[in-house]
Amino acid sequence: MQLRQQTDFLLYEWLQVEQLNRRGRFSDHSRETFDAVLDTCERIAREKYAPFNRTVDIEEPVFDGEKVILPACTQHALDAYAASGMLSAAQDYDIGGMQLPYTVEAAANAFFACASVSIGASMLTVANANLLMAYASDLQKKVFALNEFSGRFAGTMCLSEPQAGSSLSDVATRATPDGADHADDPLGPRYRLRGNKMWISTGDHELTENIVHLVLAKIPDEDGKPVAGTKGISLFIAPKHLVNEQGELTGERNDVALAGLNHKLGWRGTVNTLLNFGEGRSPVRGSPGAIGYLVGKPGEGLKCMFHMMNEARIGVGLAATMLGLAGYYASLDYARTRTQGRPVGLAGKDPSQPPVRLIEHTDIKRMLLAQKAYGEGALALALYCARLVDELHTGEPDQKHDAQWLLEVLTPIVKSWPSEWCLEANSLAIQIHGGYGYTRDFPVEQYWRDNRLNMIHEGTHGIQAMDLLGRKVLMDNGSGLQILGKRMLATCDRAISAVQKQQAAALQKAWAHVLQATAEAWLGQDPVLSLANAVPYLQAFGHTVLAWIWLDLSLASQGSDKASLGRRHACQYFFNYELPKTGAWLNVVQSRDATCADMPENAF
Amino acid sequence: MQLRQQTDFLLYEWLQVEQLNRRGRFSDHSRETFDAVLDTCERIAREKYAPFNRTVDIEEPVFDGEKVILPACTQHALDAYAASGMLSAAQDYDIGGMQLPYTVEAAANAFFACASVSIGASMLTVANANLLMAYASDLQKKVFALNEFSGRFAGTMCLSEPQAGSSLSDVATRATPDGADHADDPLGPRYRLRGNKMWISTGDHELTENIVHLVLAKIPDEDGKPVAGTKGISLFIAPKHLVNEQGELTGERNDVALAGLNHKLGWRGTVNTLLNFGEGRSPVRGSPGAIGYLVGKPGEGLKCMFHMMNEARIGVGLAATMLGLAGYYASLDYARTRTQGRPVGLAGKDPSQPPVRLIEHTDIKRMLLAQKAYGEGALALALYCARLVDELHTGEPDQKHDAQWLLEVLTPIVKSWPSEWCLEANSLAIQIHGGYGYTRDFPVEQYWRDNRLNMIHEGTHGIQAMDLLGRKVLMDNGSGLQILGKRMLATCDRAISAVQKQQAAALQKAWAHVLQATAEAWLGQDPVLSLANAVPYLQAFGHTVLAWIWLDLSLASQGSDKASLGRRHACQYFFNYELPKTGAWLNVVQSRDATCADMPENAF
Repeated sequence: MQLRQQTDFLLYEWLQVEQLNRRGRFSDHSRETFDAVLDTCERIAREKYAPFNRTVDIEEPVFDGEKVILPACTQHALDAYAASGMLSAAQDYDIGGMQLPYTVEAAANAFFACASVSIGASMLTVANANLLMAYASDLQKKVFALNEFSGRFAGTMCLSEPQAGSSLSDVATRATPDGADHADDPLGPRYRLRGNKMWISTGDHELTENIVHLVLAKIPDEDGKPVAGTKGISLFIAPKHLVNEQGELTGERNDVALAGLNHKLGWRGTVNTLLNFGEGRSPVRGSPGAIGYLVGKPGEGLKCMFHMMNEARIGVGLAATMLGLAGYYASLDYARTRTQGRPVGLAGKDPSQPPVRLIEHTDIKRMLLAQKAYGEGALALALYCARLVDELHTGEPDQKHDAQWLLEVLTPIVKSWPSEWCLEANSLAIQIHGGYGYTRDFPVEQYWRDNRLNMIHEGTHGIQAMDLLGRKVLMDNGSGLQILGKRMLATCDRAISAVQKQQAAALQKAWAHVLQATAEAWLGQDPVLSLANAVPYLQAFGHTVLAWIWLDLSLASQGSDKASLGRRHACQYFFNYELPKTGAWLNVVQSRDATCADMPENAF
Repeated sequence: MQLRQQTDFLLYEWLQVEQLNRRGRFSDHSRETFDAVLDTCERIAREKYAPFNRTVDIEEPVFDGEKVILPACTQHALDAYAASGMLSAAQDYDIGGMQLPYTVEAAANAFFACASVSIGASMLTVANANLLMAYASDLQKKVFALNEFSGRFAGTMCLSEPQAGSSLSDVATRATPDGADHADDPLGPRYRLRGNKMWISTGDHELTENIVHLVLAKIPDEDGKPVAGTKGISLFIAPKHLVNEQGELTGERNDVALAGLNHKLGWRGTVNTLLNFGEGRSPVRGSPGAIGYLVGKPGEGLKCMFHMMNEARIGVGLAATMLGLAGYYASLDYARTRTQGRPVGLAGKDPSQPPVRLIEHTDIKRMLLAQKAYGEGALALALYCARLVDELHTGEPDQKHDAQWLLEVLTPIVKSWPSEWCLEANSLAIQIHGGYGYTRDFPVEQYWRDNRLNMIHEGTHGIQAMDLLGRKVLMDNGSGLQILGKRMLATCDRAISAVQKQQAAALQKAWAHVLQATAEAWLGQDPVLSLANAVPYLQAFGHTVLAWIWLDLSLASQGSDKASLGRRHACQYFFNYELPKTGAWLNVVQSRDATCADMPENAF
């Protein structure tokens, strides 16, 4: 309930999503249709996801030699999700979609992440099909994407390889034309793929009739060598089971073999695999290699894959956020009921008095307020970014322009900040539970384990930091920074009360420090030193963005109701306890501190 | 090897433990005898502990209805530990001890924690027996403590209860005199105990012939009511199996029943239990209630229990530290061998060049240097505090005086700081491993899970913070602060080079800020607000102490060898990246920030 109230406030009051309905694409929508989607998702999450969050943690996926076995609740959750229509929520009416704004879709999907972040992983199928809708041929869309939207097929993203995690230029999977007639296949130019793909979520299972693998591979040049770097990477569809032009299974299995399951710290409801493509044990249609159909043009694989990157990274940030909020709600509930000790003033004085509830201790309130500030702040930022995606897709030209530049600089933040601070929130949730939090009888330890993934996948913290300081803030002479700064200033200008003005001044000071550090980071001649402290920069940038988000939320929460009061308190917490941390992070950026760069390897 | 070198440097060069051998108690010792102890412990840890760290994580303790089953390696580890003589290392020669300084004992035990922190938990047996040596009767010492030192019996500490974790004044276990002749029992005044004890590590197992439970319970007053608060708490020995005056098992089982095992996030090699005392299913010697022998005087239970608190908390800090270092070594090893990507300057420019090793990336070095600064700094602090324990026990009066006051203020730090920052180190170790770090194929995720316990047990972070700001810095008009400040100044006075002087100035400034914040925290009239930000105070205090430790280590590392160079770099890292964080923490302390205290419960 708490989450729904918060979501409603963010969508309808803060982000005013109903305004989107003035646009042609969304003109059939209203608060009623949005609410209906939110109601449905909230209900399915409550009934089919939340009760099984521990089940999928305990009953890890197993490979029995033939197939991957998942607990039955996974199938039930997936079926309910598909039946809700959410797989094609954003699609056109004429292919069965809802033409739902992305902001509402993201908010609705958040209920599932809060209930059980790892069951099903339907987001991957949606991302896969969305990508096909953008780049695939009409027949590829019909045969693959539409069957994914219906829930008949599932989809994966096969980027990483065992020897090359984050470094896609080192992709070694090769794609060679499949015979002389390879270009004439109606499903697309036909290639044979050979290579190993690592960290493939939902890489194998029996939950759907088929699995559509989207695979990055390199087509060798005229000398038979793969092109070095990312330019040589192309994108292929490699279905687990081969299909005909009607999307019916032909009965032939493609040469995509499960080489192993990864046994993870958390996020265990999603099977994660090592897949071998074309290892050649069983020839497919008489030849070795896994059959793959080219999507788009050769060499444009990364471009296609990164087309959906904003959404993918918002999705990771939202998952981290919902884990943070799940822990917040659990520890808040615990703190309201568990009795323990006596408040400071009475300690030791009158032990004959009964103990008080945990929430009556100030330090417990501090840990709850921190979680609230991290989790609700992150949720606001994620939905703000989702709103920008809608602006980018359906806004007027100037709105599109601003949204694009804002997303360039905010995407590394919306992905990294919740991954770091909502993980910290989960640690505080454990702390509030004391010893009980360290047991598997309470849900918080699982949230913490699940959340640790988010700083790693979809671009590590380090990669987000390099992307921000090394690319995004420099692009187009700093357009992203300028537009973001204007929005911050607009928020500050609305400050009226003394407290608000104080916060606005603190925000402007912190932002000025960020800008100064950005400039000074690049003063020298050595990019190694400019980027040596990219992560502290990312952290400071993120905290400053969140201070802005909180001030803006606070300005929209001037009522005397408890929810508004709570948001104003969380804002104050953020300005008093969190924003002052940015100074320490930025100092090393400004000075291009070389301590780390200069450390000799053998001195560790 | 790396750990041993570091230990040797700290013990022999930095702490000069050989000087202890001038004292009567240690006069038979020399570097050779110390080295022999370290060699033995290093070898046993390598052979009997390290190979089984994952085993004890996977094969959790199981209760089969009659007994608790642990993997065989636990027995082997425990037996090897007992055979090493380490259980009685600190004891007098005449009872079979080694009269080893505590500093060396602590350093030697650290090898085990680094290899596998949760196997065996022999520290509890040692702590239990040490406590008996201080407060028990001669016969109790002989029957219980000596059999613990030999490894024949194990020991537990039964403080917490399900309804009262940290709040010992709410202990509800009751002790009633066992018949008219209860005071005449040669094993001590005999009582019957009834109550439940929670979080009891090693509470039941078959590893030893018997288990000696030390139990806190309340003796009812004349009206039959338990005395409120901590004053009514007494200490009892309740063996699992009853024994005679020769320490032989009589064949009677005491009424101490295993009510359940706790299933934990980590630290799974140590069985953790809920025990029911005197639940009455089977009368013992014809009467209900578990038999317990009073130790010391009635009402002095907490005093006895907290006698060993400094050592117990140093022990927790050391365990956290060793987990931090274990993760550091693992991720350093991984970073030196795993290749991934190309350095900044070359990125995208020449992808035909082979990828470099992780350690060649500056951000990886940053994460390694942070781990080194956290782990090695924490180890130095822990051994420094261990050295103070030796001063307290065997020093001249003025040394004792200083050691006592320093331990008062440093104990909350040595317990809390490694618990927080070596946990962060473990998270960085995962991050360096990327996706592999998130799998159970690498050891780092387990270190992170194991380490999460340390902010909870033996006094939570919040309790350490209240102890520091609410008690320790106020005692004796701030003697602890004054003596600590003098030691910091003495270190600063030895700064010679420009870098050292800069660091000394930064340390003095940070310490002055700590002192100012201490004073201003207590300016108001409301202890709730004075202590509202005790945790940020603890964090700032800890970081300042560690900056001092690092400066002192750096001053002792002026050679041109790689180890010295590495320590100077870690010191520089700490001063540039970590110490500046203290400002943000102290600001809320100084202003007695009321944001958390004022947050209304229903606004969360």
